[in-house]
Amino acid sequence: MKKRFLFSIIFILTIQFSGTAQDAYQRDSIYIRRIYGEVLVNGKGYSWLEDLCLNIGHRLSGSDAADKSVQWAKKIMDGLGLDAVILQPVMVPHWERGEKEMAEFVIGGKKTPMEVLALGNSTATQGILHAEVIEVSTLEELKALPEENVKGKIVFINMPFNEAHIHTFTCYGENYVARRYGPNEASKKGAVACLIRSLTHADDDFPHTGNTGFDEGVTPIPCAAVGILSAEKLHRAVLENVGKTTVRLKFNCKSFPDKLSYNVIGEIKGSEKPDDYIIAGGHLDSWDVGQGAHDDGAGCVQALEMLRTFKVLGYKPKHTIRAVLFMNEENGLKGAKTYAEMAKKNKENHVAAIESDAGGFTPRGFTFEHNMKAGRSLMTWKPLLEPYLLHDFKEGGSGADISPLKANGPVALFGYRPDEQRYFDYHHAPNDNFDKVSRRELDLGSAAITALVYLIDQHPW
Amino acid sequence: MKKRFLFSIIFILTIQFSGTAQDAYQRDSIYIRRIYGEVLVNGKGYSWLEDLCLNIGHRLSGSDAADKSVQWAKKIMDGLGLDAVILQPVMVPHWERGEKEMAEFVIGGKKTPMEVLALGNSTATQGILHAEVIEVSTLEELKALPEENVKGKIVFINMPFNEAHIHTFTCYGENYVARRYGPNEASKKGAVACLIRSLTHADDDFPHTGNTGFDEGVTPIPCAAVGILSAEKLHRAVLENVGKTTVRLKFNCKSFPDKLSYNVIGEIKGSEKPDDYIIAGGHLDSWDVGQGAHDDGAGCVQALEMLRTFKVLGYKPKHTIRAVLFMNEENGLKGAKTYAEMAKKNKENHVAAIESDAGGFTPRGFTFEHNMKAGRSLMTWKPLLEPYLLHDFKEGGSGADISPLKANGPVALFGYRPDEQRYFDYHHAPNDNFDKVSRRELDLGSAAITALVYLIDQHPW
Repeated sequence: MKKRFLFSIIFILTIQFSGTAQDAYQRDSIYIRRIYGEVLVNGKGYSWLEDLCLNIGHRLSGSDAADKSVQWAKKIMDGLGLDAVILQPVMVPHWERGEKEMAEFVIGGKKTPMEVLALGNSTATQGILHAEVIEVSTLEELKALPEENVKGKIVFINMPFNEAHIHTFTCYGENYVARRYGPNEASKKGAVACLIRSLTHADDDFPHTGNTGFDEGVTPIPCAAVGILSAEKLHRAVLENVGKTTVRLKFNCKSFPDKLSYNVIGEIKGSEKPDDYIIAGGHLDSWDVGQGAHDDGAGCVQALEMLRTFKVLGYKPKHTIRAVLFMNEENGLKGAKTYAEMAKKNKENHVAAIESDAGGFTPRGFTFEHNMKAGRSLMTWKPLLEPYLLHDFKEGGSGADISPLKANGPVALFGYRPDEQRYFDYHHAPNDNFDKVSRRELDLGSAAITALVYLIDQHPW
Repeated sequence: MKKRFLFSIIFILTIQFSGTAQDAYQRDSIYIRRIYGEVLVNGKGYSWLEDLCLNIGHRLSGSDAADKSVQWAKKIMDGLGLDAVILQPVMVPHWERGEKEMAEFVIGGKKTPMEVLALGNSTATQGILHAEVIEVSTLEELKALPEENVKGKIVFINMPFNEAHIHTFTCYGENYVARRYGPNEASKKGAVACLIRSLTHADDDFPHTGNTGFDEGVTPIPCAAVGILSAEKLHRAVLENVGKTTVRLKFNCKSFPDKLSYNVIGEIKGSEKPDDYIIAGGHLDSWDVGQGAHDDGAGCVQALEMLRTFKVLGYKPKHTIRAVLFMNEENGLKGAKTYAEMAKKNKENHVAAIESDAGGFTPRGFTFEHNMKAGRSLMTWKPLLEPYLLHDFKEGGSGADISPLKANGPVALFGYRPDEQRYFDYHHAPNDNFDKVSRRELDLGSAAITALVYLIDQHPW
């Protein structure tokens, strides 16, 4: 409260006692209204997303669809009349799920099928794997178990989201560790496979996949996310038949050598500081189920829409402005790392970066972080952005794809924050489809990102 | 900005220099967290809404389903252990759509079907009505037309939402007049029927019905809302075939004598001021299509959830707290008028009222209005509510069902404001169904309303 109070004073002084600042405020206010008018009335983001989702669909790094999405993005950028369109080579991991997983639990010969999705980096089962299942509630519980309780068994980590949290990303943050580190811990104790309750609030049976990993020297094992209804069934079965419940699994996952792919970059050259960059981006790859609509087709088309809007409005930026569509956010961050490395090598000074990777939902605000000696507060822009449903500005993480830029030097990083209540209904799941995206919600996000790029360009943060 | 600045000062002084106020702030903060925990973890609102939507469905005033919904609400209230459950008699209009409408436009013998829904108070067509169609863009344009251009024709008011608005209720407010007054104006100029472009942003073909009315002495005519895709087709047809496009309509709508129905009221008696009332409510009736899920099943179950939560937490309110489920908001406001009249007659002093009638979407804040000599600002509660995604507090209209209370004496009225971007995708349309409601978004709204009732009860506004 105190902090905001201080910002309020500064802001009021600024706009009330300085004619120039007042003029700038007016100019900004009018220009932001133009941006919103253009996006809401003529926006292309929604139809671009429809094309990406329905005609290409999901696009895991290393897949043919990922290659197609690179060409799709390049083609759109080529049509915008930009100053440069760049395909930046990136070597990406290539893991394939193989044929649809088989999973069922067995009690006294009775088999009950379960909805599962293997996790990224899961191995195959080599035919059918059949073993007793042991349930734990948390990663800590698994870590505390003696090896003899785990050896030769299938570990089931059944950790529900804590519904009492207001922010769904808080739930995800708490439970993420089970998916990321659970299979590794299970393997270390001799488990033959690992199942994870899906990371979602939903009451349906769509499994939510995601990446996992194994430490050097730890044997990779088959591992999968289980749909909530299936997880509940398995939970009751284990509870009522301790030591007598087994699980049968058949996965055909396989890892292949790394493959060449690309970050796709579109650029409008700066008129005053062409070597200083402001970028907005999302990631072009998705998990290999559904259509990657909210995660992160939405973020990609919002960055494209930012460039389109500036071109249509005839905006001449002071800094060089880029949309960066990163490859391989989901299972390796190779695009993010390559982008930061190349920026350093090419002496591209990044002033600010905005990432949209939390879905195409209705806007809430921005989180921000910086590594500058002194940074102004985003709060001074609050009065300009609040009329556009952007109320929530706070310090916090920005995004996985832009974070590596911090190593290059002083930079301001922003995470676009749409409403998050429905995000984990679809995240990494077969129902993350175009029909779950609202045109107006998506467009309001594009306009929010464009407005913030404009403000940074006018008044570098 | 200045206003908020002032509130900030007052608030900081209050909490920093007054021990008692600081204690109260702490107590409020802790209690609001309890409310949210209870609603998010154990909430019944979503399953109540499922029951109402799937087992009763739409429930226009005067219908059997409306009667069933009264019993449904009473049964839930009876199960909550309240101090009183009241069925308050209300005489309501009774209009029936009859069999599904037929509508098509004709050019040179070629018939193209259109998706339409008759408006409330529309008359029947007496067999098939066939006449030339004339298109206008606004109500003003219709008013300006000479009578001879309109006489004997079917008027089509094709006024799209202005997409550039940020708030969808602004669009609705602008276009509402076409639906409410268009048929009346058309009839005054001798039109035989009136069609209205649906009041929605959606790109689909669900027509969005709603009420219309005719002045004393004006002949009621058949009138209907047209789905957006149908409206676009008709628009192109008229544009390309001026004077040669006709429309065929067959409606069987009928008005019946008024019928007895009820407001449903549940009450927890106040321990200190039992004759002072704080109420929260929504409306039980809906249009006669879809399931009335967002409009306004959501508001009803949120008010019920408020009572359930207070009972489960063992909260002893100072004032008498009521959930009021109003009948007949959609086509007459008879429940609202009766409730205010009876409150006056029974000397029930209403301190505050909260209405939820903008859908079960993710929370944004509250609007507020009052007719007291001096009112405190809701802004002082902002720091307590902001952590719960409630950022948007402003003066503004509260709601149609609670507004009549202003005539009874000083009262503070609040409108619960969820996000509004998707509301007009479903409003008054066949797709306003349970599957469009998110459990967490609905529950967050219930908790927001409960928290506000708590704050008013502790610190009367």
